[in-house]
Amino acid sequence: MTHDKALLSFQSALQSALQPGLQQVIQYSPMTQHLIHLEPSSSESLQSQIRRKMVESILVGSFPPGTKLPSSRKLADQLKVSRNTVLSVYQKLIEEGYIVTRERSGVFVTDNLVQGRVEVAKLPEVQVEYQQKAKYKFKSRVSSTKSTSCPSNWNSYSFPFIDGKFDVSLYPIKQWREATAKASSTQEIYHWSRQQGNGDDPMLIDEIRSKILPRRGIQASSDEILITSGAQQALHLITQLFVDNKVVVGVEEPGFPEMRELLNYQGARLVHQPIDQQGLVVDDALNQCDIVYTTPSHQTPTSITMSMERRQALLNKANEKDFLIIEDDFEFESNFLGKPHPALKSLDKGHRVIYVSCLSKVLAPGVQIAFIVADSEIINELTKLRKLLVRNPPLNNQRAVAYFLSLGYYDAYMMHLHKVFYDRWLTLREALNTYLPNCIDTGPIQGGTAYWITGPKQLDGEYLREKAAELGILIEPVKRYFASTHYPENCFRMGITSIANDKIQLGVSMLAQLIHQLTAEYEEKLTNAKGRLLSQAMLADLLPNARLECQMVYGVPCTIDLRKDGSMYGETGGMDSEVDTGRWWIENGMFYRQWNLWGYSEVKGFYVIMDGDEMKWFDENYCFVRKLELKGHVPD
Amino acid sequence: MTHDKALLSFQSALQSALQPGLQQVIQYSPMTQHLIHLEPSSSESLQSQIRRKMVESILVGSFPPGTKLPSSRKLADQLKVSRNTVLSVYQKLIEEGYIVTRERSGVFVTDNLVQGRVEVAKLPEVQVEYQQKAKYKFKSRVSSTKSTSCPSNWNSYSFPFIDGKFDVSLYPIKQWREATAKASSTQEIYHWSRQQGNGDDPMLIDEIRSKILPRRGIQASSDEILITSGAQQALHLITQLFVDNKVVVGVEEPGFPEMRELLNYQGARLVHQPIDQQGLVVDDALNQCDIVYTTPSHQTPTSITMSMERRQALLNKANEKDFLIIEDDFEFESNFLGKPHPALKSLDKGHRVIYVSCLSKVLAPGVQIAFIVADSEIINELTKLRKLLVRNPPLNNQRAVAYFLSLGYYDAYMMHLHKVFYDRWLTLREALNTYLPNCIDTGPIQGGTAYWITGPKQLDGEYLREKAAELGILIEPVKRYFASTHYPENCFRMGITSIANDKIQLGVSMLAQLIHQLTAEYEEKLTNAKGRLLSQAMLADLLPNARLECQMVYGVPCTIDLRKDGSMYGETGGMDSEVDTGRWWIENGMFYRQWNLWGYSEVKGFYVIMDGDEMKWFDENYCFVRKLELKGHVPD
Repeated sequence: MTHDKALLSFQSALQSALQPGLQQVIQYSPMTQHLIHLEPSSSESLQSQIRRKMVESILVGSFPPGTKLPSSRKLADQLKVSRNTVLSVYQKLIEEGYIVTRERSGVFVTDNLVQGRVEVAKLPEVQVEYQQKAKYKFKSRVSSTKSTSCPSNWNSYSFPFIDGKFDVSLYPIKQWREATAKASSTQEIYHWSRQQGNGDDPMLIDEIRSKILPRRGIQASSDEILITSGAQQALHLITQLFVDNKVVVGVEEPGFPEMRELLNYQGARLVHQPIDQQGLVVDDALNQCDIVYTTPSHQTPTSITMSMERRQALLNKANEKDFLIIEDDFEFESNFLGKPHPALKSLDKGHRVIYVSCLSKVLAPGVQIAFIVADSEIINELTKLRKLLVRNPPLNNQRAVAYFLSLGYYDAYMMHLHKVFYDRWLTLREALNTYLPNCIDTGPIQGGTAYWITGPKQLDGEYLREKAAELGILIEPVKRYFASTHYPENCFRMGITSIANDKIQLGVSMLAQLIHQLTAEYEEKLTNAKGRLLSQAMLADLLPNARLECQMVYGVPCTIDLRKDGSMYGETGGMDSEVDTGRWWIENGMFYRQWNLWGYSEVKGFYVIMDGDEMKWFDENYCFVRKLELKGHVPD
Repeated sequence: MTHDKALLSFQSALQSALQPGLQQVIQYSPMTQHLIHLEPSSSESLQSQIRRKMVESILVGSFPPGTKLPSSRKLADQLKVSRNTVLSVYQKLIEEGYIVTRERSGVFVTDNLVQGRVEVAKLPEVQVEYQQKAKYKFKSRVSSTKSTSCPSNWNSYSFPFIDGKFDVSLYPIKQWREATAKASSTQEIYHWSRQQGNGDDPMLIDEIRSKILPRRGIQASSDEILITSGAQQALHLITQLFVDNKVVVGVEEPGFPEMRELLNYQGARLVHQPIDQQGLVVDDALNQCDIVYTTPSHQTPTSITMSMERRQALLNKANEKDFLIIEDDFEFESNFLGKPHPALKSLDKGHRVIYVSCLSKVLAPGVQIAFIVADSEIINELTKLRKLLVRNPPLNNQRAVAYFLSLGYYDAYMMHLHKVFYDRWLTLREALNTYLPNCIDTGPIQGGTAYWITGPKQLDGEYLREKAAELGILIEPVKRYFASTHYPENCFRMGITSIANDKIQLGVSMLAQLIHQLTAEYEEKLTNAKGRLLSQAMLADLLPNARLECQMVYGVPCTIDLRKDGSMYGETGGMDSEVDTGRWWIENGMFYRQWNLWGYSEVKGFYVIMDGDEMKWFDENYCFVRKLELKGHVPD
């Protein structure tokens, strides 16, 4: 029966049902209304709910094949919906073949619906002998991975200072939906369902070439780009192509654990190369390497940006010693201070750099689109490998991301994300500097989405993490980033991708309290500090016109001028020098100060101890707060 | 500036622009109208076109930062669109940060738009020494794959008899769009973007458990299922877990080339096991195997369905010799004759079967969702491996497919597809039987989406493919399915997934002509045939009440009764026995017949030669058509 005929017949059956004299011939299963329970408050339309529940009932056998269904009028009455709603549902189910009409007798579940389905109950009895469960011989078993960076319920913590997880409020929902809708147009579905080969979406390749790579100074032709399902697949394909147990690979220590696991899995011999303030150390230890893996934009996990000098040195060494470089550029967008350095790939004249990036850490988790840029000879091999191992990443997602880029949403979104993360990054830095001065150290970093924090040397980072978690504060332990079992136990990481800006200050102040508790026995106290406690008179003698210098936790100096007139001027160094003014005074033997902006504009009083030129501040509980250096007098 | 403020300011700037006296202060770049070329006939709205082209112009630098843009009125005049259209575009661009308004002076491209972007032109000069292009040392290079099953421009051929490619008209566009839209709701995006771990979508797992696996008689708990990006990834993960160069794997010969390549790539030792009419041969050659890979539903490439007896034998052998079975069940939906046999997995009591399937060959190419069902211990290892190598398949697609299933569209779609393919499958069988009787052989298969065709033994399949392609007919050569270099050169494959039903008959008749041309010199002719040509009188003596028997090309017998009254009755054997009636007569020394349904109801006349009990029919060009056996007389 064709659909048209079915519809005609259906309409006639319904008309029959509408004639009062004939209504009594319509029989129906009395249980229908119990199976179809509607939720009027649901966002799903009533029509959709009815249809879905009828299909479910048919498929699970609650309405077996051949069952007579209630007339549309009866069902509408029972469900308390309009008859048109039920008519539409029935019409759709007829088109889809779930139900049929029989003239003048009503609507029925299709008889041969389950054709092609093996009915579990009717499986033939098979003469298979009694069988013991097999013992499996796994090859190349994946070594149980080190603890992941955070618990799976991270978003139930009040202060999730972790990296790489995202509060979903950042997801560009509207724009992504628009891009998805465009990629789901009839024309587009025709396009990407026709392209059933192993190629990538040419539109996405073009968008990456024109909108993303120029941000990194990279020019590439389309045969130098391969799309992958996430950066991890990119790294897998590359290691699969280049690495076996005869290959020596240089990796960063500390470094990205997932890459180290992948290389171990491939049997590579690893050279663990340290990181300094310029990034990966380039020295003769790299001479033996066939490949060096590095994260120059913001080193994982320290967030250190590789300097231009170091980039040059690494490229020169690669050329001299004939090794390849895998450049993992996964978060280039989060450069907050200064212009980002050009990618190694953009400086690479020897075609030695294999560049891996993903579209955005925020967009990525759901959609999984990443890409590789490399010499066309390498891309050609990787393409064959990808075809063998997995085929191409889903073309519907490739096209949706292509639209997301072509509509300019990616750029707009990156601008937005940059602003949000920059705000959080500054807020966290300010809070660390305010609550943990001379206690922790982050080093002078330019960006990234996490701070690598070195605490007091007696601090047990793992114990801190446990105790902080009890307070709802999530920080990240660092053990997993080290291949060596000797790792700095007083270090931990704090990320900004998942914590709202307005929670950062409170979270850090609570964490600071905890750290002070845990290390109290090792901290200098007013009562046992080396040097001399200054009396009210001594303060009044020393402080007016004094110039003091201290270190910010992020490694830059800060100069404070205490002017005679009670005003105060402060200036920090570094790439984003700040200035502030405030007032200071002496009261009850303590030095008081209040900045206009810094330190949350709070009034704070300190006992002051001098030890040579070193000045130490202690709070009202006699606890050590900060040390400064007396640098003489404010110039006139 | 907040958005609200920006909008207020924007509106005021526009109002200024509207005051006639002030209009002359609005300056604009005169090139705007050249950069924004609108296509009124496009399906994209004018507003969207204008927005997109402005964003492009801004991003590529045609409108550099700080450029003053034309007023909305001017731009509307130039582009000949309504001013509201331009106002909406400007408003959106302001919200997105691309442009800003400055009170009383107009609209400008945002100054700091390219912050965070490395400007290619301004890259620092880097002291990298002259570098020669690196020479790459690829490990585990992928051997250049055998020819693929069809050319990439397959859809430009008139008669694409190939398998696994799809005419896009089969794509369930509307339903897929609805599922995608549901998976893109705000709530859903929140859901799947929050789930940033490595787990699969629980909704999809549930749908597979409840709607797909029961079709195959399989019951599985959620820890026995893993979602993969396509079946190829599933096979890769499985081989990666179980196979190395010490492992012996039994594969089908001929068999699925991509799996053979994967196993070769992993270094496996292969046992090439033949196929007979019951499927994979189970004999002592399998005793040495650690793993056996098989495609029991419809063997690739022969489409032979493994019999129940063979399934039992294989499972018993696996248990006895302690090997695992990889069951690749990629096209279980296309079983046309009889009920499908239960999957090996459903009969497996020893947890030895690793079951791989994908959602549908038609849905798959774009969306790439497949799955593995196996013992939870295996799934657990595969999950770790997937995490290491690639992470989970995109969650947006997992959720969209889950909706596609939960809405019942998958079932409806499978019913539709089954019907479409069944029609084509019968049409092709009928055409092969009509145009190539006693010339080719497909064997008695029950389903699948391609026929494995054995031609005359002198036929060169590769040459036939070339010549057919010149006529716009695509058939598939079989070489790639064989590991051995000794393969039957007279074989080829004809698929139904990509050719419309109404093109099949013409395509086959043209192909038949070609085959006869190519093998003419080896064919019996009326002029040289063994036996005796029957005269008009002899025909009139022999034929009335004669019972004839012949073979259909698909391996079943057909009995034809020529009744005295000039009526004719035919009946075929096999799983879908058919009957037809017709009439026959003798004229000009030839036997004529016309079926009511068979043979397209054409009137056909034949010269008849008898050789013992063997009867041979030759057409009006003296060419051999068919041989039959004289089986005596029609019983009264």
